[in-house]
Amino acid sequence: MKLKDIGEFGFIKRIERGCLIRDGKVIRGIGDDCSVFKTSGEMAILLTTDMLVEKIHFLLSAISPYELGRKSLAVNLSDIAAMGGTPREAVISIAIPDKIDLAVLDGVYDGMKSMAKEFEVNLLGGDTTSSPEHVVINIALVGEALEDEILYRSGAGEGELIFLTGPVGSSAAGLDLILKGREMEGWEDLIEAHHNPYPHVKAGRIIAGIKAANSLIDVSDGVAADLGHICAESRLGAILEERMIPTTEKFRDYCRKFHEDSNHLSLHVGEDYVLLGTVFPGSANDLRAALESEGCEFHQIGHMVAEPGLKLRTRENSLESMATSGWDHFK
Amino acid sequence: MKLKDIGEFGFIKRIERGCLIRDGKVIRGIGDDCSVFKTSGEMAILLTTDMLVEKIHFLLSAISPYELGRKSLAVNLSDIAAMGGTPREAVISIAIPDKIDLAVLDGVYDGMKSMAKEFEVNLLGGDTTSSPEHVVINIALVGEALEDEILYRSGAGEGELIFLTGPVGSSAAGLDLILKGREMEGWEDLIEAHHNPYPHVKAGRIIAGIKAANSLIDVSDGVAADLGHICAESRLGAILEERMIPTTEKFRDYCRKFHEDSNHLSLHVGEDYVLLGTVFPGSANDLRAALESEGCEFHQIGHMVAEPGLKLRTRENSLESMATSGWDHFK
Repeated sequence: MKLKDIGEFGFIKRIERGCLIRDGKVIRGIGDDCSVFKTSGEMAILLTTDMLVEKIHFLLSAISPYELGRKSLAVNLSDIAAMGGTPREAVISIAIPDKIDLAVLDGVYDGMKSMAKEFEVNLLGGDTTSSPEHVVINIALVGEALEDEILYRSGAGEGELIFLTGPVGSSAAGLDLILKGREMEGWEDLIEAHHNPYPHVKAGRIIAGIKAANSLIDVSDGVAADLGHICAESRLGAILEERMIPTTEKFRDYCRKFHEDSNHLSLHVGEDYVLLGTVFPGSANDLRAALESEGCEFHQIGHMVAEPGLKLRTRENSLESMATSGWDHFK
Repeated sequence: MKLKDIGEFGFIKRIERGCLIRDGKVIRGIGDDCSVFKTSGEMAILLTTDMLVEKIHFLLSAISPYELGRKSLAVNLSDIAAMGGTPREAVISIAIPDKIDLAVLDGVYDGMKSMAKEFEVNLLGGDTTSSPEHVVINIALVGEALEDEILYRSGAGEGELIFLTGPVGSSAAGLDLILKGREMEGWEDLIEAHHNPYPHVKAGRIIAGIKAANSLIDVSDGVAADLGHICAESRLGAILEERMIPTTEKFRDYCRKFHEDSNHLSLHVGEDYVLLGTVFPGSANDLRAALESEGCEFHQIGHMVAEPGLKLRTRENSLESMATSGWDHFK
């Protein structure tokens, strides 16, 4: 069955079910010119938006519709996590070529709804339109946070420790394997890391709540690029410790087996969607304890320095300059 | 100059200027994982999003980049207007093929900024990405309104008068002329109506403020389709008066000259972005006076009836059934 068989409004009716997770503060969901909701009066509002374009961000031949739906919401959830906020209400725009089967769209929306349910986010409507050639999904997500808990890229200070809330590189290795057409068997964890990333919203809330960290970002463009944003916005530099970069055993196996550059994959390619932040050295243990007691991770990976630029202290104890470049859509 | 010459981050720096119109309640604009702002505590939040896709919604050969930028924000402003709200904060996602020149993008953003300035809307960031083939623009817009002033599609009552806040059909005639490749000279007003619609935010605020109207929608899909939404949501029918449908002289000239069906263009094609609503008969004069005193328009065009379905009373005084179908992206 194709979209033209049920039409735009038939499609909207079809996807409506399961979109409202919390209805407490929602005044109007899908079905009017706007969605309408209230926030807690004292909270600041967080707003983020991300666009996923077929052939640029995903291949329909590689990712399942369900995973695509999950991922398109996950990347936005991760942005809210990176401010220390709580995600609340989402609107979804989707452009769909005629050739796409309705079952694909059902899968995409099922994936979005599963992710929405896990994070108690309402899907409050959006825009559906046709597309001449490629699927495009855009989600805008509203979250909230107490103003004095929000963590910015600009808040890092000299001497602060740099931490990650999870391993990096697995998503990059998964993508590498897909792009190089390698046999997937045995590497499912890496593919999963790339296709079904799990946003660190809980970690973000913990980090913001205990007020020990001073800057936070999510690893979407790569550790080097995203730490580069913190450095640029905080007008500082950073030194990373190669031996402290957390990676999974599967990731290390993959790099060994195929002679891939593990530093490149773990530091210069993105989409891990773990959080990267800085914390006062004296508060690092408290932050670690708070995260670990809730099943989250804390990996110290370096520290902030006054001198601009990003450096990597290698396992051989030499200090190498790192490019802060990660993924740039136009370069 | 192409985007790849300055890169994603260079592009963001380039467009940043002029994006913040009101900075009172904005805590963070462009440049972090989310934008952060506060709303007035007692207000309900309105959220809308619209996606414009090249070759579906616009042709780069027909519309200027500046008008495209204005229109992409205008369609969202119109959704806020249709709830009686005040537009506040926008985030913009744009997917751009390599072939597009930077001057085109500068034009698009200049257009968005001009519209943002007129309506005191902040452009607080978004997402920029590449695209394999077509330009895609998605805007998500946050507005606010007092909860008891918001006007829904579902609020119409039997016997209420149906009104428009401006003429319809000009945008459809402009599109018709473009698609049929007719000489544009002399028909600039129609082209302008299609390429540079002006959202009726002021009219929406007046209508909501005096609490005389009971339902409201903007004419994006066409009068018949959008009135069809009000009928469906309010579980009523409607009778429109052909002789009362407001059109411009240019529109009537165009239909006469090219033997185009004026009812089709004025009622069954959309993108006029005027407001369509219903009002208690006894309050219609007050609403008209309130709108006209502020330079807005009020055109009574019919009334709501209990019997479902949409009918048109023709100039010859016969009652004809109307299809409620307007633009459906998939049919």
